[in-house]
Amino acid sequence: MPEKAPWITYRPELRVLDCTIRDGGLINNHQFPDEFVRAVYEACIGAGMDYMEVGYKNSARLFPKDEFGPWKHCDESDLQRVFHDCDPEKTGLKLTAMADAGKCEWKTQIVPCDQSPLDMIRVAFYAHQVYEAVEMIQYATELGYETSANLMAVSSISENEIDAVLNAIKKTPTQIMVIVDSFGHMYREQVDILYAKYFEVMHDAGKEIGIHANNNMQLAFANTIEAIILGANLADSTMGGIGRGAGNCPTELLLGFLRNPKFRLRPVVKLLQEYIEPLRKNLVWGPLLPYNITGQLNRHPRAAIKFLGSDKKQQYLDFFDEIVTDI
Amino acid sequence: MPEKAPWITYRPELRVLDCTIRDGGLINNHQFPDEFVRAVYEACIGAGMDYMEVGYKNSARLFPKDEFGPWKHCDESDLQRVFHDCDPEKTGLKLTAMADAGKCEWKTQIVPCDQSPLDMIRVAFYAHQVYEAVEMIQYATELGYETSANLMAVSSISENEIDAVLNAIKKTPTQIMVIVDSFGHMYREQVDILYAKYFEVMHDAGKEIGIHANNNMQLAFANTIEAIILGANLADSTMGGIGRGAGNCPTELLLGFLRNPKFRLRPVVKLLQEYIEPLRKNLVWGPLLPYNITGQLNRHPRAAIKFLGSDKKQQYLDFFDEIVTDI
Repeated sequence: MPEKAPWITYRPELRVLDCTIRDGGLINNHQFPDEFVRAVYEACIGAGMDYMEVGYKNSARLFPKDEFGPWKHCDESDLQRVFHDCDPEKTGLKLTAMADAGKCEWKTQIVPCDQSPLDMIRVAFYAHQVYEAVEMIQYATELGYETSANLMAVSSISENEIDAVLNAIKKTPTQIMVIVDSFGHMYREQVDILYAKYFEVMHDAGKEIGIHANNNMQLAFANTIEAIILGANLADSTMGGIGRGAGNCPTELLLGFLRNPKFRLRPVVKLLQEYIEPLRKNLVWGPLLPYNITGQLNRHPRAAIKFLGSDKKQQYLDFFDEIVTDI
Repeated sequence: MPEKAPWITYRPELRVLDCTIRDGGLINNHQFPDEFVRAVYEACIGAGMDYMEVGYKNSARLFPKDEFGPWKHCDESDLQRVFHDCDPEKTGLKLTAMADAGKCEWKTQIVPCDQSPLDMIRVAFYAHQVYEAVEMIQYATELGYETSANLMAVSSISENEIDAVLNAIKKTPTQIMVIVDSFGHMYREQVDILYAKYFEVMHDAGKEIGIHANNNMQLAFANTIEAIILGANLADSTMGGIGRGAGNCPTELLLGFLRNPKFRLRPVVKLLQEYIEPLRKNLVWGPLLPYNITGQLNRHPRAAIKFLGSDKKQQYLDFFDEIVTDI
């Protein structure tokens, strides 16, 4: 076991990954202006973040460019335009993109690491896609990237399936396996159980554990610090908690918990005021009641997203009755 | 130690206390119309709640009736008007009021229990007021009430002070000592430490532990379930999380966690739709950034409340700079 975190000290090896653009983009089809993305980038540097996930490397065939903005595909030309001056050795901030198994043309979309501003490819997959994920991890590693394995919707699959995935991933060269609570369904006890399970397999293979929590039940921050206390060394967060549905672990809370003096809250507060809060005029995210309910029921948030986008969005009782009787 | 809660079962002795009117009243000077209070009452019965805290028994001299509504004082005439038909044996719902040490004329305001719809008096106090609290508990007990001892702002006092309070309270006839995180400053570890400390003294005295969490850091629900897992048998919550500043543990989340089939979510959802959400037109509560910051700093939320009531309420950076440099 790694040394557990006594409450008032810190682990230097704990890194924070901002996924504001990548996960937040799920509520605006990744149509952030360059200036916005750049502001997040500057805030990440100022705040002492370790990684910034700038979007998905997903297929323009599946996600057409007339509907989706540049951060859905992370074409190298877009990356070069916005991050031409990125220099992790100077800033401490590495860039990452997520590639979804089944949605990414990875053999063409991922170029050699030394030709890209990206340092890491995070491979997201459902359990049944694990063998494509293994190939993607292998491919990205050969191109020179750090990688992570992000098994999604882990609360909806069986122990046997989780074991099968862990055993496949442990043989890959990936550095990190991330606990991903896609539906925002997990309580602390489940974080504990999954952490122990992931750790048991991954530790011997020299890999670390990460945490990506969703906020359906206002537990994203709590579950993130729980995983950190247990020993997770990569924590995902977003500015203002922005993200699909209920959103993610808010960076402004996470940095307040961390004791490493390299993290600074002020640049985050500035970004929230100038860029994130103004988005609320047109976009909705956060742990609203319909997301509380889908989280409790271990369901994908899509029904809640649809409901909150409809004219009936204040008729909570209709939503409750519909989803509860639909089980 | 009481039996710990395995994740998927329940403890029948775990009770939930609704403090929607009492704590929510702190943001509207307790000026809820009778119809609103009655709707909360009906929802509590429908949801299977064990207690409803209908307000404060606080002094009309300190809180004049031309400024504060009836639920700041809980005069017996107001209680009789709204709760004339209350019958805990039939409904399972007992009524409680909070009395603040130093703010309550308890010798006149608290009448014999058999002349009141109230079943319980919760005595709230700061550490330096513990000897008045002891007298209040004694007095209310003699009048026939259940009581609880709610030491406020526990995150801001020393271990020695906590020990002194616990040792004074253990000698009283109160049934419950409540862990109160007034500033919303506590992480799970602190809940664990305080629970163990309270339990060690109270268990031998035959008393139980309760939890009242504030939501400054989006941890009210997480900290409440943590205390429940440890063995706390009284959990406070409010509808929609309404309450002063960042608010409280939301009932809609707590009931989703509890496995006792007597709890039902639908009446809560109905109340949220019809009564609680409409309040947001005029009232603001929830874990907004200024409350995140006061919570992290272990400060009373009053500076954040003042800021959010001002014209500058979106100038987060001004608030941050002011409060951080003010330490």
